[in-house]
Parts: sequence; C-alpha cells; structure tokens
Amino acid sequence: MSMNNLGIVVRNIVRADRAAVDRLAGFGVATIHEAMGRVGLAKPYLRPVYAGAKLAGTAVTVLLQPGDNWMLHVAAGELVDGDVVVAACTSDCEDGFFGELLATSFRARGGRGLVIDGGVRDVRELTEMKFPVFSRAINAKGTVKATLGSVNVPVVCAGAPVSPGDAVVADDDGVVFVPAALVADVAAAAADREAGEADKRRRLAAGELGLDMYRMREPLAKAGLRYVE
Amino acid sequence: MSMNNLGIVVRNIVRADRAAVDRLAGFGVATIHEAMGRVGLAKPYLRPVYAGAKLAGTAVTVLLQPGDNWMLHVAAGELVDGDVVVAACTSDCEDGFFGELLATSFRARGGRGLVIDGGVRDVRELTEMKFPVFSRAINAKGTVKATLGSVNVPVVCAGAPVSPGDAVVADDDGVVFVPAALVADVAAAAADREAGEADKRRRLAAGELGLDMYRMREPLAKAGLRYVE
Amino acid sequence: MSMNNLGIVVRNIVRADRAAVDRLAGFGVATIHEAMGRVGLAKPYLRPVYAGAKLAGTAVTVLLQPGDNWMLHVAAGELVDGDVVVAACTSDCEDGFFGELLATSFRARGGRGLVIDGGVRDVRELTEMKFPVFSRAINAKGTVKATLGSVNVPVVCAGAPVSPGDAVVADDDGVVFVPAALVADVAAAAADREAGEADKRRRLAAGELGLDMYRMREPLAKAGLRYVE
Amino acid sequence: MSMNNLGIVVRNIVRADRAAVDRLAGFGVATIHEAMGRVGLAKPYLRPVYAGAKLAGTAVTVLLQPGDNWMLHVAAGELVDGDVVVAACTSDCEDGFFGELLATSFRARGGRGLVIDGGVRDVRELTEMKFPVFSRAINAKGTVKATLGSVNVPVVCAGAPVSPGDAVVADDDGVVFVPAALVADVAAAAADREAGEADKRRRLAAGELGLDMYRMREPLAKAGLRYVE
Amino acid sequence: MSMNNLGIVVRNIVRADRAAVDRLAGFGVATIHEAMGRVGLAKPYLRPVYAGAKLAGTAVTVLLQPGDNWMLHVAAGELVDGDVVVAACTSDCEDGFFGELLATSFRARGGRGLVIDGGVRDVRELTEMKFPVFSRAINAKGTVKATLGSVNVPVVCAGAPVSPGDAVVADDDGVVFVPAALVADVAAAAADREAGEADKRRRLAAGELGLDMYRMREPLAKAGLRYVE
Amino acid sequence: MSMNNLGIVVRNIVRADRAAVDRLAGFGVATIHEAMGRVGLAKPYLRPVYAGAKLAGTAVTVLLQPGDNWMLHVAAGELVDGDVVVAACTSDCEDGFFGELLATSFRARGGRGLVIDGGVRDVRELTEMKFPVFSRAINAKGTVKATLGSVNVPVVCAGAPVSPGDAVVADDDGVVFVPAALVADVAAAAADREAGEADKRRRLAAGELGLDMYRMREPLAKAGLRYVE
Repeated sequence: MSMNNLGIVVRNIVRADRAAVDRLAGFGVATIHEAMGRVGLAKPYLRPVYAGAKLAGTAVTVLLQPGDNWMLHVAAGELVDGDVVVAACTSDCEDGFFGELLATSFRARGGRGLVIDGGVRDVRELTEMKFPVFSRAINAKGTVKATLGSVNVPVVCAGAPVSPGDAVVADDDGVVFVPAALVADVAAAAADREAGEADKRRRLAAGELGLDMYRMREPLAKAGLRYVE
Repeated sequence: MSMNNLGIVVRNIVRADRAAVDRLAGFGVATIHEAMGRVGLAKPYLRPVYAGAKLAGTAVTVLLQPGDNWMLHVAAGELVDGDVVVAACTSDCEDGFFGELLATSFRARGGRGLVIDGGVRDVRELTEMKFPVFSRAINAKGTVKATLGSVNVPVVCAGAPVSPGDAVVADDDGVVFVPAALVADVAAAAADREAGEADKRRRLAAGELGLDMYRMREPLAKAGLRYVE
Repeated sequence: MSMNNLGIVVRNIVRADRAAVDRLAGFGVATIHEAMGRVGLAKPYLRPVYAGAKLAGTAVTVLLQPGDNWMLHVAAGELVDGDVVVAACTSDCEDGFFGELLATSFRARGGRGLVIDGGVRDVRELTEMKFPVFSRAINAKGTVKATLGSVNVPVVCAGAPVSPGDAVVADDDGVVFVPAALVADVAAAAADREAGEADKRRRLAAGELGLDMYRMREPLAKAGLRYVE
Repeated sequence: MSMNNLGIVVRNIVRADRAAVDRLAGFGVATIHEAMGRVGLAKPYLRPVYAGAKLAGTAVTVLLQPGDNWMLHVAAGELVDGDVVVAACTSDCEDGFFGELLATSFRARGGRGLVIDGGVRDVRELTEMKFPVFSRAINAKGTVKATLGSVNVPVVCAGAPVSPGDAVVADDDGVVFVPAALVADVAAAAADREAGEADKRRRLAAGELGLDMYRMREPLAKAGLRYVE
Repeated sequence: MSMNNLGIVVRNIVRADRAAVDRLAGFGVATIHEAMGRVGLAKPYLRPVYAGAKLAGTAVTVLLQPGDNWMLHVAAGELVDGDVVVAACTSDCEDGFFGELLATSFRARGGRGLVIDGGVRDVRELTEMKFPVFSRAINAKGTVKATLGSVNVPVVCAGAPVSPGDAVVADDDGVVFVPAALVADVAAAAADREAGEADKRRRLAAGELGLDMYRMREPLAKAGLRYVE
Repeated sequence: MSMNNLGIVVRNIVRADRAAVDRLAGFGVATIHEAMGRVGLAKPYLRPVYAGAKLAGTAVTVLLQPGDNWMLHVAAGELVDGDVVVAACTSDCEDGFFGELLATSFRARGGRGLVIDGGVRDVRELTEMKFPVFSRAINAKGTVKATLGSVNVPVVCAGAPVSPGDAVVADDDGVVFVPAALVADVAAAAADREAGEADKRRRLAAGELGLDMYRMREPLAKAGLRYVE
C-alpha cells in the first residue's frame, strides 16, 4: 500500500509462468501450502459457492470499496486467458459484489474464477455455469458503482498478501496464493511431498501406527508422555 | 412494537394478493430486492436448510421467546393455503425451535415453508419432505412451551421489518420481504429488470466489456482513474 | 481436569456397552438429547464435513494443544473397533489438525469417525472415503508435533463434557454425548419417544392442530393469550 | 421500507412529547424496556464510546449506505433541540462514519447524541466533549460521500424498529426505542416499576430471599424442583 | 450431566477449604492457571462488568435455561459466606439474567460475586455496589421465571468444567476454576511460581535478554533459527 | 511471504526516519490514515489494553505460531530505542502470548509498546507500567516455546501489511501502519489536513451546516435527493 495505491490500474503485471501454474493446479491446497512452508493460505472463512468448486490461475487483484463493485468491471478489462480475479475490500463488507453477469463477462475474457473477501449472489446460476467462486458470504444485497478502488495493486485477501500475477489455487480445503517467482519450486516441492504420501497411506491402511512410522515414540517419551493403566 | 404487542394473535390480517405473489415467485431474491430499490433483504446469515430450497408466500409472523416454541404451535392454527411462517425472537437464540412434526403440521394447514431467525432440527427429514426452511442455525437443542409471544404482529426478522401478510421469497441467495401493498409493482419492476438482462448477458458472453456496455469509461476517468503501464 | 491431566494417556478406560451403543445409533441426535432431558449436546458450530455424514461409537478423547496434532497420532494407538475420536483443544484453534492420512490410520485401527472442536482438511478425500468427521472448521492450515496434550482424560468438546468411553452419536442435526452408564437407559427412552411420534405425525398430517393434540388451548388462555380480530 | 424509501428526507415528522421524553430520561434502559413489556431494545452489541455515556431524546433517523456518511451531513440540517440521531445502514458495515467534526455540528444544531449501527472514530475527542455516542464499533476508517440514503424514514437499528420522532434512551445497559405515542404511558409504567423496587431492595438487603418475597416456592415445587441432600 | 440433572438442587456440596481459597485469592488468574498446568480457564469472552473487578470464592453452580433466571433466585437460598455463583446456560443466551436486586440478595446471603456465561444488566448500580460480576455480555433484556434448571450440579461455564464447591478466582485477565481437592496444592504452586518471578523481573528490567536468562539460544539454533544480515 | 520466510531473524532492517516518526506521533490514527488515502489501518478488533493507551515507533515484526510465544523472546534481542513490536500469527489464536515480564524486557531494550494480532495477559500490571499494548483479546492462557516463527519479515497484522521498519501509530481509534519511505510525506499531509480542521470546527460549532460548508447541496440534488414535507 502506498499513498498512490487507490484509483489506479496497473497494466504491465508479470504473471507466474503458465506451465508452472498448470503443474501446481494438479495439487490440493493443503499440499501446496505445506510445500511452501505453511504460509500463503487465506483464512478459512473463504468457502466455495458450490460443492466441488476448484480453480487455479494467475491473480488479477482488485481493491474494492465497501458496497461498491465498480472495480470488478474495470478488472474484467484486464483479464487474459488463465487469470483469476482476487478481490479484497478496504473494509469488511459482505455485500453481493458479484453475480452471474460479471461471471459471464469474466469467462468471456479468459477468467477462470473469482476469489473475493466479500459476498456474492446468483448462486444457482454460478453453479449451473460451473464458474468457480470462493467468497466469505452469499448475499443478494446489490452494490453501487461510485467510488474508485484499484486493479493490480498488492492486496491482502482474507488475511493473505497477494501480488498481481501470483498463482492462486482453490479447492474444498481453501485458497492458497503462491508468489509468482516461487511457483515452479512450490510445484516441485508439492510433487515430492505427494510422492511420499502414497507409501505412508499404504502402511497406515495396513494398520501401522504413525507413532512407529514417523518414529514418534522416543520424542514423546522424552517430552514426558506417560501411559497410565 | 407497542406495549400490547406480546401475548396476542391477530386474525384479520390482510394478505398480499395471491396472484401477485405467484408472479413474484418467478423471480430470484437478488432481482426482487434490486427491483425494490435494494431494501427488504434479511441479513445473509439466514441460509437454506438444504441446497436448492426455495419458497414464496404470504407471511404469518411469529414473535418467539428464547428457548420456547409455543407460538409456532399457535401459528399453525392461523395458516391458510399459501402462507409462509416468518419467525423472529425477542433475543438472539439458536435453539432448535422447529422440526419435522411442526413441518408436517404446517404443510397440512397450507403452509409453504418457514423463515426463522433461530435454529431448526430434523434436517434429514425436512430435506426428504422437501419442506423449505431458511434458518440461522441447525441445532438439535429442544425448546419448551412456557412463555407467550405473539402471532401476526409486525416483527424484525434477521434485521428486516416484516408485517403479517407481506410477501416472502427465499432462494439460494437469501430471503426478501415485500410489503403487501407493493407486491404487484415489485413484480412488474422485476420483470422489467430481468427483460434487460438477457441482452446484457449475450453481449457480455460475446466479450463486450461492461466498461463499454454500461458506458463507465468516462465517469471512471472523471473520478480520476489512472491506467499505469 | 487436574494438575496431572496433561501429558498422559489413560489406557484402562471403560467403554459404553457396544450393543447399547449400537441400539442408540438407530436414533437421531435430536431424539437422543431429548431422551436425556435436553443435555449432552455439543454446540451447533460442529458440522459434518460432508452432507449426510453420521457416526456412532465410543469416545476415545484427545486434548490437543493449539496448532499441534501430535496427540491424534497417539490416540490412533489407543483405538479399538467401534471407537470414535473426540478431540478438544486447550484453546480455540481452527487449524487443520486432521486429514486423509490420519483418517486412513484411524479406520485401519477400528475408528469409526472423528468429532473435533477444531479444523480439518482433505475434505474431498474424506468424502470419498466416507469417513465421517464433525468439525468446527475446514482449514488447509497444517499443524506441528511439538507439545504434549493427553489421551483419554475427561474433556469439554464444543461446550459439552465428555469422558473416555462415553457414547457419541452425530448426524445432520449435530453431536450428542451420552455418559457410558446411561447408554442403555437413554436408548430405551429414545425408543419410547420415537414410538409416540408416529401417531402424532399421522394426526398432524391429517390437519389436526398441535394446539388440540397437545391440549395447549387452556394453558395458553391461562397465560393470557388473546385472539384479536 | 418501501420502493420510494431511498433518497428522501422527510421533514414534517411528529416528535414525541418533549416533557414526556424528559420524564423517561429519568429511568434506566432496563426499567424502560421492562415497562414496555420487554420490547424495543437494540441488540447488546451497541456500546457507549466512553464509560458513563447516556442520552435521551427524539429520534432523527438516518439510513446510511455502507462506507458512506453523506446522509449524516443531511441529517444535521434536520435537527431541532433535543434530537438524537439514530443511524442504520443498508448492510452491516463497521467503518468510522462519525467523528468529532460531525459531533460539533450535531451539538451546535441541538443534537444530544448519536446511536449508530456502525463504527465511529475520534474517541478521545468525543469523550472530552462529553458527546454521548453508542456504536457497534470504534474504527478510524473513513467514509465517502457518494450514494444517497434517507433521513427520517423508519429504520431498523441494531435489530430494533425505529420511527422518526420516537424516543431514544441509552445508558450503560444499552439502547431502547419507545414509540412516540407511548412515551407518556411508558414513563408512568417505569415510575410504577421503580416505586416497587425500593421496598424489594430493602427486604433483599435484609436477607429475605426472593424465593419467599416473590412467593416462588410453591410454583417451583409444582414444576418439580427437588432438593437433594 | 445425567438423565436426572435437571430440576434439582443439591445441598450437601463439599466446598474447597476456605483458608486455602483465601490463599489462592492472593494470586492472579494467569499465575493460578499456569500453576495448574495451563488448565481450568474460562474462555476469554467472560469479561468484568467494571474495570478492576476481582473475586475469589467457592462455587455455587447454576444451570439456567435460555431467557429464564428462575434458578438464580433458587441459588440465592443456597449461598453461604464466601460463595460465588457460577452460572451456565443450557444454550447460548446473552439475555440480562442478573441485575442489582439479585446482587443485593446474593451479597446479603454471603455471596461474593457472580460468574455467568450469559448477560447481565444494571451496570452502573453493580459498579457503585462494587459487586464483582464477570459475564459474556451486558444486556438490558429481561428474563422470565418459567422453566427449571438446576443448582449445584456440575456445569460447563464458558468452556470450563466446574463442580459445586470448586474455587473460583477472577480478575482483569479472566476467570479460572480450581477443583476443590487441588486448591491447597495450586496455591502452593502459585506461590512458588511467583517467587521465581521477582528475580526474573529484576534481571529483565536491567536489560538481560530472556534468550540468555531462559537459555534459549541453543534450542533455537537446534530448531534451525537463522540470523540473516 | 516466501518459502524461506519461517525460522529467520532479519537484522539489517531499514527503519523509518526517527524524526519523521516523531512528527507523525503528533497526529491521531484517523488523521494519519486519511492522509495516506484511507489505507494502512489494522482491523478495528485490535483494541488498547487500557483506556488512553497510545504509541508510535518503528516496527520490529514478529511472525508467531499459534499457542507459542518463542519469537517474542527472540524479538526482544532485536529492539533498538524507539521500536514497537508488531506481532502476527500464522493462524488465528487468542492465547495470552505476552505479559508483564516480556513488557519489562521490551521496555528495558528500548521498546515503546506492542501491537499483537493475538491475546495478552497481566492487564493490571501493564496498566500500572503504562506499557501500551493493542491486542485482539485479553486472555490468561499461557503459551509454549517450541516452534519457530520469524522476526523482521513482512507480515499481515490484523489485515494490514507491515514491513519491518515501518512506522506504527496507535491510539483510542485503532492502529495504523505507514511504510517507512512514506513517513515524512504522510506526516506533512496529516499536518495539512489538521490545519484545515480548526476552521471547519469553528464554523460547525457556530451552527453552519456541513451541507453548506462542503457545498453538498448541489451534488445531493443532482444525485436525486428529495425533501418531503
């Protein structure tokens, strides 16, 4: 944020490498955030508008004003194929900033979905369109178009910092943002992590305890755990 | 509310015109509240008990006491075909005021559904019955029958004022109340609004920007929006 | 809770009678809590991770530390067939303490599900596995394994006291805990209660009012209810 | 609310009788709401901005838009001596709609205080001015002046319906609204209620139990209360 | 909780040793809960009704019904000198269950204060009386006297389990419950803890770092902490 | 945030110019955030621990883990005169991370106060010491020292992005962060803003309406405002 961060649309943003984003899209949000070192997650109040919604893409960020969705219309003009709109608000507001018409527009311009720290409406239509949206509320309350925010400035969305061009991945477990420069590395780390899980899953399914598989018994005893009959 | 508003059941309420309510039922909640000038919505914490629930009808209002559902039984006796029970509480309470047996009774008396600023239970049964309920919580906690509230007095339900006989419409996007005298006008305004949307949808789907379609570029520039490369 | 309640695993817990628990499993949570005299319910913020999830079993209790799921691994080693893990936390924390790998382990060791006053992740996988989980949040945020809590000590889970070995039943309406010594009696009382409901349902469906069926008109009048034309 | 309720300022409102309001001002909020039959209270999240703040007057109502305080400036022009501004918002918003400059203006125009279902700022200055404010939040966040709401239309403020001209009383215990036509009756009922309390206080202070003074032992026994040694 | 826990008043409770409770009263809530091993705290939403309120005593527990304070009157009859009333509710309710008249009665019967997982009113009077109350809300909303709860059964108050006779201590930092049998030991452990703090305080005030005083540098390095210029 | 942001302490941070920070300290939080263009505010849930607390300084940032205050001890070692500790947490946690002993240490090392998106304890002692703390909760619950976070990495504190070395100002109205490079400009803009307010205050106090002083009547009429008799 700076003294000039409101009322601007930044156009020359550097998007994360598309191929790397697509590799990242193959992993779940929980895996990605673990691969990043447990950072980058939005707060868990962002939830999918319909069960099974998921998305991955590059962030076009929007800073909204409460009760005002003007900047979402501006953002539509900045989308390229593979983008996801990531919208924050200058103060907490659960109005319905977004609905079916904007979804139609976003999709026509290459948009893959929306993550918004605010409310949305037209749930039935969004579900039928299979346009993935992650929001903090469902709210029929409409908004005005009267006050400037910004497009493609760094924002904080649901507690997580996002820069324009960052990768965004969202699924049933939540929403994670990956800095553009790290996407390839995080995808590689996620792949490593997932590779290790198949074997663990098999062993646990066979009844082996995590206590033994992860060699926890000694550190637990050292920490003072006592078994009482 | 007045000094005599507790402990009464008002019988000669004037219901919104049935045919107008049925026309209104053809529109979504977001459209209706826009057609009214963005008023009349319940707060968004009222949610459908099962996905896809929707209802429309004329309000029989109930003022409950916390932890007490006696007045819902009284309300059942006031229902006519096409009514929806709209229940408020004298203080915030998420107890399970309503379940399958009351739903059975309401339906048998002509009730089309329930909107309640409180909790309900028997979710599985309500879903199987397809009895639409919009509530602030799902809660197995039972209630007593010990203290009088009222039936068919004006109430505030989830932040929205409702008078007996008003139209109620609820769907995935929320709950809206329309004063009885305005139902025909609101239905007409909603129809106008929806008529305009088909063309907009087609143009947006073809890639036209809202910026151009709604002629926003000039007012945005006037407000000071700057595009930065 | 006592001064020695942290850092211990109690092994010789007395589980509720399995046959009685299985009888109890035939009733809904609302019915069970009514049969107990309206006690034993967890707060309604505990919700199923997928629609239709339900579980019944005997509690293996866990006291977690915030941001730390070490004790869930310890608890896996204490499960016998028919157990449900019931996890509380020493302070409010919505991190994702539990996911697919732990679910695999719990199931392999006889666990029937999880009730947790905290967050969980891997919603898609848990849904596919049909492993029933009731939690206060869905959250991809991972946890550490660094600080001792306890297993099989009395805990307070979502506001309800639970002792190891108590019966746990959860469905769409919520989660109820039944003290081990009362399970048979509660199952019997639930059966009585349910028996009475079929007749009531039939009469209400035929249009009889609860006002008459429950003989409420006289007490309502005595309490001062007035009908106003 | 109606289809024409936004964008208007109603001027010919009927204020509650000033002398009756001043009598009412001598009672606490709890007493007044009891005297009305336990209705009329705002939800308890409205709190005084400084300890000991209290106010009483006639309501000039304001319907704000989220993030926009334009209508508070319009309301200043409608104040007469003895008024209190009562502000609601078309959706939940905790921005700082009000501060020291508006307080200066309100006071200069005869305003006695503010009740607002939103945020305010300049706490230190308001405290020094002893200008009583009851709000849902303290928030430095500023607002714009871009979208019309209304002045002197009926509103719902913190869950309570208020009409222009109603009496407003607020103290440490909360905020209560009394319909203009009832103010004299409520003041009389409050006086009766308070008259009875001095004797009760004296008897309770002397060690008499409420069980005996209110003759509760018999109804408790009848309800089934058992004393267990 | 059991099937017979509602509708009873237990009279022969065993109170914590008065002298031990009085020793405990000399320590702060944070120190006491640390001395117990970080258990026994109520959730932090319980706050003092006036700044500086503090209390210590033996618990007379009350289980209330939502919107109903009948059992507080019953509890007054069970108080002996040095007791504190600890009230829970069968479901979340922020009504004003308690005010000045009950405070007068409690004090006359030996009561030292109130801890309540609900609302209270008459804040000004309670402050003037210096009757210490810790509650989850301040709310003028009155309650009825219609439904039985219990007195002196085990309850869960703001997430913490409390048995009748347990010690209760509350101050600006919160509320802690100490099982009756542990009071002497906890007081001793608290004294030990406090003894160690004076020296630490002096060293820290002299500029010594906790890193050195607590010998944290080695474990931090072992955990992998890196200092980056 | 990056893949290497956990487990590090950055030492060569660039602090905002001390003289500029001291100029900024002369303005209120509301004025500063307006001067920045209405950005930089923490969410309003951060509140002072005692009435009248205020602070200004340069941020030493801390990223905590839930339930763990180890990094606050590490941060103490990084303080220079005029610093304020600004602590965020990797997930929402209201434990009492901070109390009197750490305050003693911070002050001895030059620390002027604490802003923490978490809980604190020892309210009485902090008040007596006049050590200003702004927190999201007061909570006696203690924390462990087991898991690494970081010191002096960029964090998001209560929704606002903060970099090490940024200016922090907090008072009764909230908490604002000013990027180090902008402090002088913001202080100058705040001075301009305040200069204009004295004249406005005088005119408003004399009864002039903001409607006239701000020339709002024409834009209001243009927006469609109607006065109704």
